[in-house]
Amino acid sequence: MKKVPVSVVRRLPRYFRYLNELYKQNKLKVSSKELSEQMNVTASQIRQDFNHFGGFGQQGYGYNVPTLNQEMAQILGVNENFTAIVVGIGNLGHAIVNNVNFGKRGVKILGIFDSDPEKIGNLCGKHRITDIQTIEEFCEKSRPDIAVLTLPKSQSREMFERLKRCGIKGFWNFTNAEIRSEKGVAVENVHLADSLMLLTYSLREQNGEE
Amino acid sequence: MKKVPVSVVRRLPRYFRYLNELYKQNKLKVSSKELSEQMNVTASQIRQDFNHFGGFGQQGYGYNVPTLNQEMAQILGVNENFTAIVVGIGNLGHAIVNNVNFGKRGVKILGIFDSDPEKIGNLCGKHRITDIQTIEEFCEKSRPDIAVLTLPKSQSREMFERLKRCGIKGFWNFTNAEIRSEKGVAVENVHLADSLMLLTYSLREQNGEE
Repeated sequence: MKKVPVSVVRRLPRYFRYLNELYKQNKLKVSSKELSEQMNVTASQIRQDFNHFGGFGQQGYGYNVPTLNQEMAQILGVNENFTAIVVGIGNLGHAIVNNVNFGKRGVKILGIFDSDPEKIGNLCGKHRITDIQTIEEFCEKSRPDIAVLTLPKSQSREMFERLKRCGIKGFWNFTNAEIRSEKGVAVENVHLADSLMLLTYSLREQNGEE
Repeated sequence: MKKVPVSVVRRLPRYFRYLNELYKQNKLKVSSKELSEQMNVTASQIRQDFNHFGGFGQQGYGYNVPTLNQEMAQILGVNENFTAIVVGIGNLGHAIVNNVNFGKRGVKILGIFDSDPEKIGNLCGKHRITDIQTIEEFCEKSRPDIAVLTLPKSQSREMFERLKRCGIKGFWNFTNAEIRSEKGVAVENVHLADSLMLLTYSLREQNGEE
């Protein structure tokens, strides 16, 4: 399959969310026009996006919701049974563990690690916080795919190198240290403040129009 | 000015972050090639993006970092002195208040609100948590521009309507309830799990290549 442009890939989770919503509502069919209205993307954009993956459906008949939902889950790796560990468990770590429905995205949390003796042994959700010194041992035994990095920025680069040596192949990085993907290692950097700036951008535009 | 495509706008915070980094390193000039290598975007894409805002610099000479940094800040509304309130202060609220550098994006937090009697009166960062029942009164007096919604999904729609009536023009919505922008009201929905799915997408692609 040809490499799909990043801009298209970035829209896939949104498609998945909407389709999942429709699926839960027991909807069987959806047209690109309906999807378009709900998602605020043009219908032609949706058809173009879907064409990267073979098109999924017949124009005029609309898309079959359960099939499309399943296809989208497949593309996004939701059916792959990936496993994860969470490294660093301050407010942000707690918020991620408790607010993000990992299971719905097919990701299972195997362990949660921190270096703070006051936290080790406590529960976070249903997971017991484990001493970060045992992380190599844990990875050797349990072979997690993903590390969620929510530790302080200053410790993130070292932890990244350490976890790469443990065989971790995917990093969900909340540390504000920009870490780059490399061959065999996928990194998704999250910068919460980026969307704050998109909001101030819109506000400024809005004020300009008044 | 012509409306800038959403895909271009979405790249602006990243440009701002990189330029800010270069600015702090006292760099005076940067070429689109250098920016391109650092940002993993083609040089031609960068030039095209910048052309939406007049181009910013002379090709061949590179861009002036302090000027471009300043222009980008201006475009993103960083210089507008927007003000914000945070509504709902669980782990996620705490994480946002303490981990996002609002000041750096030109946004000042004026107040933090919750309905939980156990939390009201406590400090979050340097802000005292205030009873949500007083939010109308507060808004009338202090006229915040932005509300950061980090309350439970079930309460978010009602709070959105209530805060619109208070004159809030921008919503940074972390509640997983999809709220749409409307005329005069900008909404930025944050779905943390979307980037988890981008990561599992990359992992799946990566596994396929092996």
